[in-house]
Amino acid sequence: MHDAREVVVLRYGHRPGRDDRMTTHVGLTARALGADRVIFPDNAGQSAETVRDITDRFGGPFAVELRDDQKAIVRNWEGTVVHLTMYGERVQDVEGDVRESVRGGDDLLIVVGGEKVPWALYERADFNVGVTNQPHSEVAGLAVFLDRLFEGAELDREWEDADRRVVPEATGKTVIDADDGEEGGGVDGDGGHGADGDEASRPD
Amino acid sequence: MHDAREVVVLRYGHRPGRDDRMTTHVGLTARALGADRVIFPDNAGQSAETVRDITDRFGGPFAVELRDDQKAIVRNWEGTVVHLTMYGERVQDVEGDVRESVRGGDDLLIVVGGEKVPWALYERADFNVGVTNQPHSEVAGLAVFLDRLFEGAELDREWEDADRRVVPEATGKTVIDADDGEEGGGVDGDGGHGADGDEASRPD
Repeated sequence: MHDAREVVVLRYGHRPGRDDRMTTHVGLTARALGADRVIFPDNAGQSAETVRDITDRFGGPFAVELRDDQKAIVRNWEGTVVHLTMYGERVQDVEGDVRESVRGGDDLLIVVGGEKVPWALYERADFNVGVTNQPHSEVAGLAVFLDRLFEGAELDREWEDADRRVVPEATGKTVIDADDGEEGGGVDGDGGHGADGDEASRPD
Repeated sequence: MHDAREVVVLRYGHRPGRDDRMTTHVGLTARALGADRVIFPDNAGQSAETVRDITDRFGGPFAVELRDDQKAIVRNWEGTVVHLTMYGERVQDVEGDVRESVRGGDDLLIVVGGEKVPWALYERADFNVGVTNQPHSEVAGLAVFLDRLFEGAELDREWEDADRRVVPEATGKTVIDADDGEEGGGVDGDGGHGADGDEASRPD
């Protein structure tokens, strides 16, 4: 689907309690929109559990890691580093350069800020990228960036080892067993895209 | 920028406290990515305040409404209704049809689920649309949908009546007064895209 060897999303900073849903949504968005792996700070265990649970049920491959060395991960990354920030260059201006940078098979690290990020991150990043230069949502910025990075190809990916699969349809809520195509367990919750552990990810 | 007369995002359902950040991010994403207006449930006053504050400082036009009649808004909408849901048709398959539907100047209502949405919404919607058929984030789904609806044109919009403007740059955090181009007040917080009232939206 993409030319980079591996596309990894790093959630930089996490405040337990307050940031749980945002961090979970960063992870689920990374998974749904084509990244290979997400790295959370090691105090984000609850978010990691939710993303792993969704991966177990809806398929992968997708990896979730908890790490306590975020600064070192960025500093020592062998490959291209993109930092998503409202101060960065316009995504429409640099997305082609980012794709070019990983075309040789480089690994790509996409850093999504939570708490205040250190200035060193701006300096280390090969690309500081703004999905608009407006304050909005790190989840929205990540989503648009991934969709543009992959030029929409991520929407056609196949999922492996899924227990269940949603059948897209004009009016309906159909979930089938992924193996045999029979109607299987549904997904609780709002049917929207939000999945927070106590909504769509709740076993039914 | 778009052919619809007005593009409105409706946040369906809100649980005060628990949903504050998600609802705020829905509103800020709607603003940043080209919608004209967001409608929140009337119990989401805190989120409305944050989005209005960002609009005051970073420009518009963008309207925020609090309404207690969400069902009626959807039922009586004169124009096209899109409902974003993981059960819907694939965005890549129907985005062209949605654009075609509003090309005559129709108003477009985009419904973003929070709590459980009623079945009547699936039936009333002209399009139930899935940004992937995976559980992820309503903010991510909205962001990708808007970027595709507007085919990227929303990224080039000009902002009116802004106090300040971020200057996109490769390495830096430059905010200028919107009127005279002089360096002005900065934006506190992480410099990411997240803006939650106590981060980027805090007056400096």
